[in-house]
Formats: sequence, C-alpha cells, structure tokens
Amino acid sequence: MMPPRSIVVLRLGHRAFRDKRITTHVCLTARAFGASGVYISGTRDPSLRSSVEKIVRVWGGGFWVEFVKSPLKAVHDWKASGGCVAHLTMYGLPLGETVLRIPKEKDLLVVVGGEKVPPEYFSLSDFNIAVGSQPHSEVAAIAVFLDRVTGGRWENLKFENAKLRIVASERGKVVEELDK
Amino acid sequence: MMPPRSIVVLRLGHRAFRDKRITTHVCLTARAFGASGVYISGTRDPSLRSSVEKIVRVWGGGFWVEFVKSPLKAVHDWKASGGCVAHLTMYGLPLGETVLRIPKEKDLLVVVGGEKVPPEYFSLSDFNIAVGSQPHSEVAAIAVFLDRVTGGRWENLKFENAKLRIVASERGKVVEELDK
Repeated sequence: MMPPRSIVVLRLGHRAFRDKRITTHVCLTARAFGASGVYISGTRDPSLRSSVEKIVRVWGGGFWVEFVKSPLKAVHDWKASGGCVAHLTMYGLPLGETVLRIPKEKDLLVVVGGEKVPPEYFSLSDFNIAVGSQPHSEVAAIAVFLDRVTGGRWENLKFENAKLRIVASERGKVVEELDK
Repeated sequence: MMPPRSIVVLRLGHRAFRDKRITTHVCLTARAFGASGVYISGTRDPSLRSSVEKIVRVWGGGFWVEFVKSPLKAVHDWKASGGCVAHLTMYGLPLGETVLRIPKEKDLLVVVGGEKVPPEYFSLSDFNIAVGSQPHSEVAAIAVFLDRVTGGRWENLKFENAKLRIVASERGKVVEELDK
C-alpha cells in the first residue's frame, strides 16, 4: 500500500522584518491545514522559527520549519525523489479544475512566492495554479489550496502531544488542558 | 426573486503598525473571494485604505473599505436590517457542517477578530464558526470560509472596469491590458 502522501510548503524570499507576521501565518496555516512542515528561503530568521515552535509545543503535532539556502535545489531534490511540485501563482491555471489533476499518490511540495518569483519556478513546477487570478495573499492561497487538495480532511486531524485542545462550542471559549 | 446575497467582512481591532500587512491581506482576500467590502475597527489607517483602493483601481470591481468607530453597533445594525452574522473563531463549531446552516437568502456579515474578541461577539453572532480549532490566521480563515460559503463561485467573478487582467497560463505570466 502507498504510504500516506505528505505535503510540505516552500515559502520563497522571506524578509525578516517586513514578512515576519505573514510568514508566521503561512507556517501556522500550513500546519493547521495538514502540511508536515515548511521550508523557508530568504533571511534566516530564528525568531520566526521559535514563534512557530512555541505553537507546536502547546497545540501538538510534529510540524517543522527549516531554512533552506537554495530553494531551487529544494525543488530539484523534491522532484528527483519522485515528488510532485505545485506552484501557487495568480498567473497559473484555475484552481478548481487543476487541483483535480494533482496525483494523489505522490508527496506534494507547494511553492508560494514573495514579491517576484524567478521564471525557473514556473518551468520546474509540475503545476502552476492560480487560487484566483486577483492579487490577494499567499496565506489565503495556501489555505484554500490545502483545503481543496486534502478534500477538507484537515478538519479531522489529530495533533499528538498537545497541551491544549479546544472543544467546539456554539458560544464562548472552551479549552481543555490535556495531561501527558 | 431574491436579490443576490451580499457578503461584507468586519475586521476587529486593527492596529496601524503591527497589523498593516495582515489587514491588507484580509481586505484583498475578502475582495478576491467575493465580499463587497470590509468594515475595519481599531486604528483609522488611511494608508491601509489607499493600498487597497490602488489595487481596486487597477484590478477592478467595486470593493470598499470603511472604518467604523463602533464595531458592535455595526453588528447590531446588520442584524436589525435582517442580515446574518457569522463570527470566525477557533472556539466555534466545525466549519464543514456549520457552513451548511447559513441561510442563503440573507446578507452575510463575516466577523474576524484580532487578538482578543469581546464576549458580546460570541453571543450576538448567529454562528460562531471554527475554520479549524488550531491557531493559524484570520486571512486563512476568511479565505476558506468564503470559498465554502460561496461554493467556489469566486472563480468566475468578473471585476468591472479593470485595467489589467491575467490570462490563465500553464507556465509564465500573461497579463492583458484592457482599454476602457
């Protein structure tokens, strides 16, 4: 039987000061919607990684953040090991029909850019996918893409070794503290 | 026949410096996924509005940004005029089943918080909805919620009076300049 497909996000061109919060949102969104980890290129930003790791310690799961020096090499390596690469870009093909063409049995690398994405990513990726062809947000693009590509299965994810868990509630806030 | 339902986002507690980019992403995401406009409470931040208006001038449509002094009054007014209010919060009920209960024939106000949302919003809203009960991003929450509540119809939106339009493309960037 095939191992379960793993999804990893590659976030290009992080700038430590300007992008701090956006890249944190990219990481937390990737985690919440079922990715295993995020590769980040651009400025190596230890405070970003520690914010994300703090969330992981409290809310559980094995989500990781790794800085990569050469994001292009990360894409090449991913493909060389048999994985599929989907690049989210407003210039790409429509999400609705294109997401259906992504092979279910391969590991998936989801590339999201910053301001300017070099042309190599457009040619190397198996799919260039537009989560809408309007300017909006890489956070929104990842969220909607992962929702669609996982068929919404993130709603049933269990995050192991969590210290806190929310109990769904019609009104108000119910948080459960979990013993180890 | 019912008029088409309009969707507006209310973004609570904007802080001019810290939240500038996140709130801009909230606005652009709301626009791209079919909302008519965004009410913003917190710091009145003209530079935020002008960034969004610049996008609207180039990419079209009638999307608006309005600062509100009393967001609670905005919610009361929305309900008084017959609209439905959905508050996105990680403490709420699961998205998948709850989004189906939102009435299709009413105008919809989508409330997203900042750090701390006062309890009144939990009690006043018709629905408290968790786009996942994990910490992530208000941008992601709005995107996935709007995708689900519109049944993905944002993919066919036309933005009137646009100066630029992207032509979907398998590789590369194709942008069309539109004459008036």
